[in-house]
Amino acid sequence: MAKEQNNDLMEKLVSMCKRRGFIFPGSEIYGGLNGVWDYGPLGVELKRNIKDAWWSDMVTARIDMVGLDSAIIMNPRTWVASGHESGFTDPMVDCKDCGMRLRADDLSAPCPKNRNKPHGELPKDKLTESRQFNMMFKTYVGALEESSAQAYLRPETAQGIFVNFNNVLATSRMKLPFGIAQIGKSFRNEINPRNFTFRSREFEQMEIEFFVHPSEGMKWYEYWRQRRYQWYLDHGLSKGRLHLREHGKEELAHYAAGCSDIEYDFPFGCSELEGIANRTDFDLKRHMEFSGKDMMYFDDQTREKFIPHVVEPSAGVDRGALAFLCEAYHEEEVKGETRVVMKFHPRMAPIKAAILPLVNKDGMPEKAQAIFDRVRKRYNAFFDDKGAIGRRYRRQDEAGTPFCFTIDGQTQQDNTVTVRDRDAMTQERINADQITEYLHDKLHLEDC
Amino acid sequence: MAKEQNNDLMEKLVSMCKRRGFIFPGSEIYGGLNGVWDYGPLGVELKRNIKDAWWSDMVTARIDMVGLDSAIIMNPRTWVASGHESGFTDPMVDCKDCGMRLRADDLSAPCPKNRNKPHGELPKDKLTESRQFNMMFKTYVGALEESSAQAYLRPETAQGIFVNFNNVLATSRMKLPFGIAQIGKSFRNEINPRNFTFRSREFEQMEIEFFVHPSEGMKWYEYWRQRRYQWYLDHGLSKGRLHLREHGKEELAHYAAGCSDIEYDFPFGCSELEGIANRTDFDLKRHMEFSGKDMMYFDDQTREKFIPHVVEPSAGVDRGALAFLCEAYHEEEVKGETRVVMKFHPRMAPIKAAILPLVNKDGMPEKAQAIFDRVRKRYNAFFDDKGAIGRRYRRQDEAGTPFCFTIDGQTQQDNTVTVRDRDAMTQERINADQITEYLHDKLHLEDC
Repeated sequence: MAKEQNNDLMEKLVSMCKRRGFIFPGSEIYGGLNGVWDYGPLGVELKRNIKDAWWSDMVTARIDMVGLDSAIIMNPRTWVASGHESGFTDPMVDCKDCGMRLRADDLSAPCPKNRNKPHGELPKDKLTESRQFNMMFKTYVGALEESSAQAYLRPETAQGIFVNFNNVLATSRMKLPFGIAQIGKSFRNEINPRNFTFRSREFEQMEIEFFVHPSEGMKWYEYWRQRRYQWYLDHGLSKGRLHLREHGKEELAHYAAGCSDIEYDFPFGCSELEGIANRTDFDLKRHMEFSGKDMMYFDDQTREKFIPHVVEPSAGVDRGALAFLCEAYHEEEVKGETRVVMKFHPRMAPIKAAILPLVNKDGMPEKAQAIFDRVRKRYNAFFDDKGAIGRRYRRQDEAGTPFCFTIDGQTQQDNTVTVRDRDAMTQERINADQITEYLHDKLHLEDC
Repeated sequence: MAKEQNNDLMEKLVSMCKRRGFIFPGSEIYGGLNGVWDYGPLGVELKRNIKDAWWSDMVTARIDMVGLDSAIIMNPRTWVASGHESGFTDPMVDCKDCGMRLRADDLSAPCPKNRNKPHGELPKDKLTESRQFNMMFKTYVGALEESSAQAYLRPETAQGIFVNFNNVLATSRMKLPFGIAQIGKSFRNEINPRNFTFRSREFEQMEIEFFVHPSEGMKWYEYWRQRRYQWYLDHGLSKGRLHLREHGKEELAHYAAGCSDIEYDFPFGCSELEGIANRTDFDLKRHMEFSGKDMMYFDDQTREKFIPHVVEPSAGVDRGALAFLCEAYHEEEVKGETRVVMKFHPRMAPIKAAILPLVNKDGMPEKAQAIFDRVRKRYNAFFDDKGAIGRRYRRQDEAGTPFCFTIDGQTQQDNTVTVRDRDAMTQERINADQITEYLHDKLHLEDC
């Protein structure tokens, strides 16, 4: 029962995202591409808000963090050192009857050659032995398709940070503890992309590698678990749906001293938004070994030389966007009709203010345009003069716009406009010259 | 002579970019990857400033523009429709002696098997006939490496806009004329990457497709040529080095009604920063044909139905960054020493303000830290307490930081600090509580 309700919610959300221009299937006019999505006019603003908030809070506002933007195609030896070339694999089996390739741990897909029985229920000899399938996308750099020119699309942004550790250290003069932060696209050739944008083949990451003295690894691990958990709460995810789950010892990679997932109760189940791991000195040590470069840190106070330990908070932008979309989605009964309203945190709302002339005459459009020109200098604003005012409010509710300002007959007389609040649906009148100050006071964007 | 000077300038710039953390060779510890670059702490901020300024001016501030963020991996039929699969090629020849593959139009590389003679000077029969080499990077999506699963990394972001034309139109309610804007990575398997970041294999684009009534194509083409040219002037590129070059008829693609390049006098020659083309209805028509979808526009005022024409201003982020770096680079004699100063436009400067305690005692670091905490809430600021003050100023000159605020002995007495101007190197004292207002007045960021 609860499961059915949740499927229903997911369907409604996907449909709303398409209808309102948050998210479209990738290259949809050609039938799409499995596991690839395009962000429409509202979606691109939502993603920008998430990335800008993260960069502002994690990089700009911090004295102990610098940014980086490394390339998607890296020297392939990177992935030998990181372990991805040998270990970033899923076990796969082929069905000898229908030829389908499946993940060995999920044989639920039906076999068309066996009356659509799930593959897991077929006799064992109908399936091949399981083999390892590497999830990195391959490509060839240069004119020759030889293995020497083979390269990969990065499956994570993190390695771009590690290989630049010496460069950043030498140029930025940072001292331990400090972090390097990066936002960018990564690619994983998922066999079974699913759950809308949650598990996709092309996605965007926001990753930090925070370098510390080996004795301080667990202290900083604790700090980042809490800091990142709080960041999602601060931006509107509800405490009841957001979980900080410490991995059990049996889940930990052999080199990891600790790992936690920040999980969110999506309609399809509780799933990971971000992982925070104490990776010890594993990555720098491997890159030292494979590159032959000295990546030790010299502390000029203590005269100590050592390989820093690293704490990695690794977040998915698309997963964050999906969580904010799920959290914001509300259906409410208003005067016998259902209104869909996206109750975004103001910082995440794609549009902060809509400017609406009540009718297209009596100087209202001109006045509205003049107000719009002023507001959009500071806030992402939307001008809409099409259709009945009630329907325009509903459109802004679906977009998650916190405030609508309407220019009406009274505006010409006393220069006041109505402000409508997205969540309370209350209206009040304010002076048209006060709109940017009103938004400044109500949105609290500068305090974030 | 002029040529030598310019090579020298380019070398100095590349070296400064590495030394100060603007740009590093991609995955350098593994010997790099030809045609791929990583942006360091200062470089990532410069690129963010370029992209944010463009988005703010071209999308947020405009009533006739919406954004989009489409995927890098698209359904491969996109590239059949666009013409890239058959036509995005360079003619290549192989040397039968040394095996090198070269662009047929540039045979200057020396042949190691023929006493390093340039390949162009070898007898003709030493080279193969020229063949077409497609510059799109190939990859395979899904578990099977079959041609049915073959896909490409997009060679331009523009096609992501065209395939979403119907989706954006239906969800955003835009009316002609209007544009769709997108920023994102593109990839071209250049045979001969060169000129630092100018011709690289992985790069970032800022593209607009501006849809108009067929009768207004040339009017909007003129508008966008001028608008985009002015944008670079507004951000500090000098008129003497920036050229708007109209293509001759013989240079035009068969479908184009007009095309101009915005070119900049780089040290390696005058080269393209951005192209503005009137592409008529070519792209939408092709996608209609190949997808079978109706992509006509219906004007509900005139009851006319037609395929819009499109004007495309297509800019390279990395090329913009390189032009801003070249323009900013200055060497000046100061008291018998050479100072390198990056005279960035304030909007482009990676760091807007440096906060410097004169010495690490007498409460100066604490006071400086408190000021820093306030300033960084609004501006990207840098705290530096390491080394002699003169050397710290020089470091900020190289980073292009417009203003340095120094906390000294007098600060404790009257709460004033010195402000040092990057370009004039003059100093004045202002009240420490006025720093953000001072920056607000001097940087003019809100008026951009």
